[in-house]
Amino acid sequence: MSDTFDELWGALAPVGRQRTTGGYRRFSWTPADTQARAWFAAAAADRGLTVETDRNGNMWAWWGDPGPDAVVTGSHLDSVPDGGAYDGPLGVVSALAAVDELRARGVRPARPLAVTVFVEEEGARFGVACLGSRLLTGAITPERARGLTDADGVTWARAMAEAGLDPERIGADPLALERIGVFVELHIEQGRHLVHRGSALGVASAVWPHGRWRLDFTGQADHAGTTRLADRNDPMLPFAETVLAAREAAEAHDAVATIGKVAVHPNGTNAIPSRVRAWLDARAPDEGTLRAVVDAITATARRAAGRHGVSPASFQESFSPVVHFRDDLRDRVATTVGGPAGPAPVLPTGAGHDAGTLAAAVPTAMLFVRNPSGVSHAPDEYAEPADCHTGVRALADVLADLLAAE
Amino acid sequence: MSDTFDELWGALAPVGRQRTTGGYRRFSWTPADTQARAWFAAAAADRGLTVETDRNGNMWAWWGDPGPDAVVTGSHLDSVPDGGAYDGPLGVVSALAAVDELRARGVRPARPLAVTVFVEEEGARFGVACLGSRLLTGAITPERARGLTDADGVTWARAMAEAGLDPERIGADPLALERIGVFVELHIEQGRHLVHRGSALGVASAVWPHGRWRLDFTGQADHAGTTRLADRNDPMLPFAETVLAAREAAEAHDAVATIGKVAVHPNGTNAIPSRVRAWLDARAPDEGTLRAVVDAITATARRAAGRHGVSPASFQESFSPVVHFRDDLRDRVATTVGGPAGPAPVLPTGAGHDAGTLAAAVPTAMLFVRNPSGVSHAPDEYAEPADCHTGVRALADVLADLLAAE
Repeated sequence: MSDTFDELWGALAPVGRQRTTGGYRRFSWTPADTQARAWFAAAAADRGLTVETDRNGNMWAWWGDPGPDAVVTGSHLDSVPDGGAYDGPLGVVSALAAVDELRARGVRPARPLAVTVFVEEEGARFGVACLGSRLLTGAITPERARGLTDADGVTWARAMAEAGLDPERIGADPLALERIGVFVELHIEQGRHLVHRGSALGVASAVWPHGRWRLDFTGQADHAGTTRLADRNDPMLPFAETVLAAREAAEAHDAVATIGKVAVHPNGTNAIPSRVRAWLDARAPDEGTLRAVVDAITATARRAAGRHGVSPASFQESFSPVVHFRDDLRDRVATTVGGPAGPAPVLPTGAGHDAGTLAAAVPTAMLFVRNPSGVSHAPDEYAEPADCHTGVRALADVLADLLAAE
Repeated sequence: MSDTFDELWGALAPVGRQRTTGGYRRFSWTPADTQARAWFAAAAADRGLTVETDRNGNMWAWWGDPGPDAVVTGSHLDSVPDGGAYDGPLGVVSALAAVDELRARGVRPARPLAVTVFVEEEGARFGVACLGSRLLTGAITPERARGLTDADGVTWARAMAEAGLDPERIGADPLALERIGVFVELHIEQGRHLVHRGSALGVASAVWPHGRWRLDFTGQADHAGTTRLADRNDPMLPFAETVLAAREAAEAHDAVATIGKVAVHPNGTNAIPSRVRAWLDARAPDEGTLRAVVDAITATARRAAGRHGVSPASFQESFSPVVHFRDDLRDRVATTVGGPAGPAPVLPTGAGHDAGTLAAAVPTAMLFVRNPSGVSHAPDEYAEPADCHTGVRALADVLADLLAAE
């Protein structure tokens, strides 16, 4: 099984890796993404799995006839800009390796099994995270999804069409969804809870509510050398105050708030900007707290903009309510994973996942694999090979348990 | 003469104009710049002027045999990102129209006259303003200039070579420089002094010392949802404090300081940045004040970076000492421009110009044309046609006066 995992991992590793940073750029429907999808289709076909792409661009590889009441496992292959190797791919590679493990053990599934690859999980190109699973479950309308644009103004509809898919057919897909009896996603941990617990694996209890807000500050472009300070409407100043307010609000509420993406126009050294556009990512243990954090930040943005004669605007680009994974399934998975040593640690996560989106529609569970540094969404993201192998065996145990159930 | 100006202006106006903003993107050696240079060569040839490109890429159009002791006038055709129509082009178009005016008046020059177009005045593509005039006068070494890079990593040397020029030949050009007996640059005012004075034209007394500094904040990329605040090394936070410190330092010293250009890496909504790179433009009435402003800003940058576990660095990308234009030439030009009503207003400017660079080597003067809104480096930059025509007549008066002198 270790060989299987290592071989799959080694074949996928170079796809979309940046020479300069060692990070990954696998954005949906770009050549790197297409190559990663082709790798998945080939690896599934090698295992005799039947590969299909659903109406929304998600991939499914079936062991046995598709649905109903299938046990489904998988993750995603797209990345954030210069992301790590594990976020997404670890779940997909582990799922394929777990199929090999189940076969090696002689398991004969009583239910169908599928390995999935969800599209645009990171939202790195089109701005809405978990887009493939949101479309599948109807959590986003097809109209809105079609109109999402990347940094060059290319729409989701156009990018899909150029990949040979029909954007008119996207949207809630009850037939595909109803085939899922239970969904399990294995993922690298994006923090250090498991390091502190001294455990290679853990099971998710909940996903914090989280969202993305776009903040626009519109001022007046002007000459940086000749425009008196009093005559300026410089949007960079209220933007800077807002960055500091985000940190302050997060600290005050035991939440997290981050401004990690900025677009300045015209972005010239000797020009006062006409506009600064920033994206806020905020997450908190509960929705009331999250609203309080975001309200505090946007209130500062408005006040600071007013002082500088700048027009502020904010738009909620996405919002994901809190997800509590089902207690019965969570406990069953934790018991299976923990084995004789007792149940695996159960922990919440601040990160969104396709499992979080699917949990609204089907029984869902998540496994986490230990991450020594806790770093994620960056080239240093890492898991020990031994922990990855332990993850595959545990995922195979969980799948075997679920496949045997009626 | 008005016809001549309007015709030249109308032919140049569409080159590099952006449909969406109405602003200009004429970056050195790009297709829009090449088109603007071709327009200049054709307009000069139409007038029987002899066009040459010097070793550094600056263009010269000669009326009569080149140098020595020539009267030279001109400006630049490149722009900041989404700049206005007037900054640069007004001086070039007015110079050509002034040649027509001189001929219409029957002036027969006793000295050679040249109209010039200096390359990369804005520094919008390669980061160093007045690059063409700096190279000509030896104010920058050819080694440094060759290695300057644009946002895509293309060097000045490569961009020049692709334009058919030999980057090995750039650098101080005493033969070209010694031909200049006197240089006069007409430019749109980038402020509202002339509005307050009620005058269509003014003459420059001095250029404030000014410079550009690159500020790098290097932190650790990480997941925006799962990384605890205490575990973060987020470079966006000290960057934001530095933006506010720049405004505060400028206010305290009656100077100007602007951060108008920012590059965030990896620039993903759900990733804490690994690096924020910002460019500071600062200007002050004297060099001591300018140093005090920049020192205050970089001190804040260092302190704020230290508090967040972020590495700060700053690099001076360019520095232009104060320029006082020669009193005798300034007074003579102001008297000629003012005519019977008395000398034109004399005013300092915070903006750098090729005239400021050349002033270190040759007698130099500048004329400003009134700008009703004061806006510059933005699509709203504007001068009334009547003021532009007045500017051409005044420039012709100044040139005629200088051409007659021994």
